[in-house]
Amino acid sequence: MSDHLQAALKYAHQHDAEFLGSLQEMLSFGSISTSDEHKNEIYKTAEWVAMRLKALGMERAEVMPTTGYPVVYGEWLGAPGKPTVLIYGHYDVQPVDPLDLWHTEPFTATLKGDNLYARGASDMKGQVMACLNAVEAIVRTGQLPVNVKFMIEGEEEIGSPSLDAWIDANKDLLKADFCLNPDAGMLGKNHPTITYGLRGLASFELTVSGPNHDLHSGIYGGAVHNPAKALAELLAGMHDENNHITLPGFYDSVRPLSDEERTHLAALPVGDDFIKQQTGVPEVWGEAGYTSVERATGRPTLEINGMTSGFTGTGQKTIIPAWAMAKITCRLVPDQAPEAIYENIKHYLEAKAPNTIRWELKMYGGGRASISDINKPWVTALANAMETVWGTPPLFKREGGSVPVVGMMQSALGMESVLTGFGLPDDNLHAPNEKLDMPTWRKGTETLIRFFFNL
Amino acid sequence: MSDHLQAALKYAHQHDAEFLGSLQEMLSFGSISTSDEHKNEIYKTAEWVAMRLKALGMERAEVMPTTGYPVVYGEWLGAPGKPTVLIYGHYDVQPVDPLDLWHTEPFTATLKGDNLYARGASDMKGQVMACLNAVEAIVRTGQLPVNVKFMIEGEEEIGSPSLDAWIDANKDLLKADFCLNPDAGMLGKNHPTITYGLRGLASFELTVSGPNHDLHSGIYGGAVHNPAKALAELLAGMHDENNHITLPGFYDSVRPLSDEERTHLAALPVGDDFIKQQTGVPEVWGEAGYTSVERATGRPTLEINGMTSGFTGTGQKTIIPAWAMAKITCRLVPDQAPEAIYENIKHYLEAKAPNTIRWELKMYGGGRASISDINKPWVTALANAMETVWGTPPLFKREGGSVPVVGMMQSALGMESVLTGFGLPDDNLHAPNEKLDMPTWRKGTETLIRFFFNL
Repeated sequence: MSDHLQAALKYAHQHDAEFLGSLQEMLSFGSISTSDEHKNEIYKTAEWVAMRLKALGMERAEVMPTTGYPVVYGEWLGAPGKPTVLIYGHYDVQPVDPLDLWHTEPFTATLKGDNLYARGASDMKGQVMACLNAVEAIVRTGQLPVNVKFMIEGEEEIGSPSLDAWIDANKDLLKADFCLNPDAGMLGKNHPTITYGLRGLASFELTVSGPNHDLHSGIYGGAVHNPAKALAELLAGMHDENNHITLPGFYDSVRPLSDEERTHLAALPVGDDFIKQQTGVPEVWGEAGYTSVERATGRPTLEINGMTSGFTGTGQKTIIPAWAMAKITCRLVPDQAPEAIYENIKHYLEAKAPNTIRWELKMYGGGRASISDINKPWVTALANAMETVWGTPPLFKREGGSVPVVGMMQSALGMESVLTGFGLPDDNLHAPNEKLDMPTWRKGTETLIRFFFNL
Repeated sequence: MSDHLQAALKYAHQHDAEFLGSLQEMLSFGSISTSDEHKNEIYKTAEWVAMRLKALGMERAEVMPTTGYPVVYGEWLGAPGKPTVLIYGHYDVQPVDPLDLWHTEPFTATLKGDNLYARGASDMKGQVMACLNAVEAIVRTGQLPVNVKFMIEGEEEIGSPSLDAWIDANKDLLKADFCLNPDAGMLGKNHPTITYGLRGLASFELTVSGPNHDLHSGIYGGAVHNPAKALAELLAGMHDENNHITLPGFYDSVRPLSDEERTHLAALPVGDDFIKQQTGVPEVWGEAGYTSVERATGRPTLEINGMTSGFTGTGQKTIIPAWAMAKITCRLVPDQAPEAIYENIKHYLEAKAPNTIRWELKMYGGGRASISDINKPWVTALANAMETVWGTPPLFKREGGSVPVVGMMQSALGMESVLTGFGLPDDNLHAPNEKLDMPTWRKGTETLIRFFFNL
């Protein structure tokens, strides 16, 4: 082990309290990107990240505008002839509702035992800070052994709508040998994980309307089609009795799972009992002919994210609601296109929606799925670092989630991403009481330090 | 025409502005009974009604406690040997949401042309005030020709949960020859109407839950049953392709419509075009084998009043919601019992709900349907008064709505009710922009004055 590596690891160990303090500071910003009301927090977080990059001696560190929320860009290119790593991250977070289910304040990062509770702790301010801390440990004890660029965006949780155009406009700036993307997680505390496949996303809002105002259910009940009922019927019909999705053409461009891949997925420690334990569901569910891990990573889905209609307060209100709305997202696999899914739903509605109601389908956004080559040198560098820290080689997995930026990198820059991260399956991502496991986070920082030296 | 009747009619005509003013005052109270937060307004309204009854010279006028919201009771028994009329009404109103669809303040009664806009204007503060105004016109110009009792409750809009026990405890107090219940409406401006049948009501809340918190749809999507989807499936399955309700046993005690009754219902001016025009629905809907008016009055229904799950704000949130809830009401016909409907839904859920989710069914309350004898003298007295005022005999109809008190009167007191009212089908009952048609309301007051003299 080089002296510098040793010194960097020692620095990280000695500055554990400071690293935690910085993360808590970053988690104090309510940088929710879903709606406009948290705009100020978004900008404050971006400025804070740029300030941290400057403090690490980056030659350039700035908040760059996009058509939406800004990207924080940083670079240090003082190691000519060495590889250049583009480190991707996002500083925005998911909304916090339902707020009453949180046991702590979502934007007051609270340590309880080994867990740090806060919105964004795991997804992904903790991951961003692990990268910054690794760089800090190296630059405070010597010089970075590689060139680094940072691209930390503020719209990941809403599907990165402005990033595509920004990347296109900054192709030269972003040139690098590969992208390190720590926005994927681990399969368990003792299972360091490298993700080689991601699902895509397509996101919609379906509104069904009937009467032009809420009706008295005594006067009209029985004689008009209840819009909430009609919506339920349309949603229910989107899966058949085998839980296959019935949208016409939905599976047309789905790349089938190979036998080899199914064998590989079967080796992952994600059985039905694991899913039941992690989620609390009484029984697993899914598409006939596939295992749970295949359903959650290698097969496309259709989910209702939310639903609203009529009166939902305390007590009763005897109405036929004027309208009903559902938010729908589809997780996509190679080679499905988000735009095609919109057409699939539209065709389904055109064929199935009765003439007793009206409907409107809105598309929010989407991104394609991706699959990467796992034989690249940077993947080996990361795998070796993980094996040193955990004493076990990493698992290679396909991930059920979506990181649109990975697809953008591939199509706009021809750049491969190595996906990893130090979040755990029970971190309550996108849910109340999101947390980060501190011992795993520390191992993550050590892994990243070693990774930079392995390159 | 007697001098007294003539004087009373003249009084009503001359005091039109004062009558409107009193109604606006009553409408200024936000007496919503659905939730606790409007408690103060409920009590203020009750006190106000009692004060008005006292001002009319009632020998007794008081706010009487129940286990829930109070009943305002009043009586004047100064006409021995003459019939005693028990006048029923309710001073509570429906909630006002969605508030943004109102064009005026719901509790600031606003006159625009012939219409007075306010929550409760038609249902039923306007009807209560028509009774009080009729009595006022008679007592200010002489003496009431009959004995009167008033029973004005505060929980009608939530199914009168405390009234049953209160009536049981006050049987002697409530003794009367019949009950005048003006909580039913008219079929059109030129169609005075007497309602001889009412549907009953049974009201439920169904919650489906799966995971113990909202899940990231990327991580678990495809492998767990989405509770919003499961709820949609259960709700969709509650009707078959003929729009018959599939709950086991639901139709077992339904009294079929007789051929005579179907002929009678066919004569009512409530065709499909009327329903489309009143509601704005693109097409009518309903149970195969029945006309729209039969579906809306003589057949039982199952309606979703509201539905909620997961994220419904602006934008998207990629979750699998932990739970989903629907509010459900069934309109009942003779001889269905509300408690039996609870069992029907329970049996349906026991048979159909999959083991991938959990469900909970809560019953809020209910009341039986009723059918009355239309050959009683008080029905004739009312029908004659209507014919005099409108120049056309009233229509006799079954009503799709529910007035639980009518069933209670029959079972607890053996008392028949004559149901009428001066609201119109387009009054936006239970909806934004509820209104009352002033010319019809004035005719209503005149009808009631004549009715008292006809008895």
